[in-house]
Amino acid sequence: MQLFLGHINGNEFQLDAAEVQHCVKVLRKSIGDRIDFITGDGNLYQGEISFTSKSKVYGSFNKVKSNFGTVPYSLTIAIAPTKNMDRIELFVEKAVEMGIDTIVPIICHHSERKIIKEDRLRKIVLSATKQSLKGKLPQVQSALSFKEFIAQEHSNLLIAHCENGHKSSLKEVLDANVATTIMIGPEGDFSPAEIQLALDAGARPIHLGSSRLRTETAGLVAVSTVYQELG
Amino acid sequence: MQLFLGHINGNEFQLDAAEVQHCVKVLRKSIGDRIDFITGDGNLYQGEISFTSKSKVYGSFNKVKSNFGTVPYSLTIAIAPTKNMDRIELFVEKAVEMGIDTIVPIICHHSERKIIKEDRLRKIVLSATKQSLKGKLPQVQSALSFKEFIAQEHSNLLIAHCENGHKSSLKEVLDANVATTIMIGPEGDFSPAEIQLALDAGARPIHLGSSRLRTETAGLVAVSTVYQELG
Repeated sequence: MQLFLGHINGNEFQLDAAEVQHCVKVLRKSIGDRIDFITGDGNLYQGEISFTSKSKVYGSFNKVKSNFGTVPYSLTIAIAPTKNMDRIELFVEKAVEMGIDTIVPIICHHSERKIIKEDRLRKIVLSATKQSLKGKLPQVQSALSFKEFIAQEHSNLLIAHCENGHKSSLKEVLDANVATTIMIGPEGDFSPAEIQLALDAGARPIHLGSSRLRTETAGLVAVSTVYQELG
Repeated sequence: MQLFLGHINGNEFQLDAAEVQHCVKVLRKSIGDRIDFITGDGNLYQGEISFTSKSKVYGSFNKVKSNFGTVPYSLTIAIAPTKNMDRIELFVEKAVEMGIDTIVPIICHHSERKIIKEDRLRKIVLSATKQSLKGKLPQVQSALSFKEFIAQEHSNLLIAHCENGHKSSLKEVLDANVATTIMIGPEGDFSPAEIQLALDAGARPIHLGSSRLRTETAGLVAVSTVYQELG
């Protein structure tokens, strides 16, 4: 199954402009062909093409499958972008495949990278969403400073850090009934002041096992654990 | 902490030839300097350099820490190499960071890639082992055909496939007292004949949740689950 991103109005659809060339030029779809598309709302739409041009593909749809490839939990990962962008991009792709709702890049005291191309991450999210046959498009928020992020409201807020002190395992503190938000720090970890700020804001400290994990690997383990425990 | 790969004889050591340049030229270590190294046997060795040249670093060690960064489980992943080598390399790096004993490339009926550079994977294993501060060096075996692999003896043999039929979740069938071996198929899955061969050989079928995962992502989820459940 080949999925496209589309936009709907009543039971008419229009493919997203960025998808047209692949649909018409590469896959050579034309009038009368069946097409499967998503809008990002969680549904799979199945329709028929009624018009194509170099820049547009229109049609109508008559079948909608809800909760297409969705996971039964709500997960936000707030993660410090890695110095090497490849590593955070890899995390984003894998997190989408498993199942995640929101990714928030957070800029921390020890972050070597302060600028992040969210648009590039959104392209990876879309590609992984289509490839893994999911109807819901995870959101990549604009980067926030650690302080801005911690000032927001979060339900089950967890911070994975490497400083000493009591920490629960992620499994112990998951609750299927509330949205989970997990904070993953940069190379060099969160600063002690950041950890204290998070705890003051009600975050619970967690560990991700005894191994020394890179930032993006910690993110992968966190998403995988939620996926296996609540999925 | 910067780790090197070394070889020991009594309480003398010699750095692996491939490590000498980095030690002497890049880090400018010389006679009298302290050095931390591993041999891959699970220990951390701490010694002092007594001789350096362009091609050799010798010394003696007086401190040994056993079970350095080791995980309390035994895990083998037999995985079909991905068409794009980057993807299997990424799996290997992340699996080592979390904790794995053995990686076996298996060539399956639907494998598009039949040739694999094990030496390149071994380099990635060594690099990730040092970076994640582990004393035990995971093994990359030479590639085997599916049939060759299945003909070997395995204790808790599990096969993750996407065909219909009863499958347990990975968590349900893990046993901390025996070594675990998990088979992960290629793009396009194991063939029905391969799945039957595995079941006949005593393998238990498992699923890795409801999401549609790429080969390397399935491998990551499998390792992460074992790491979180038995680590």
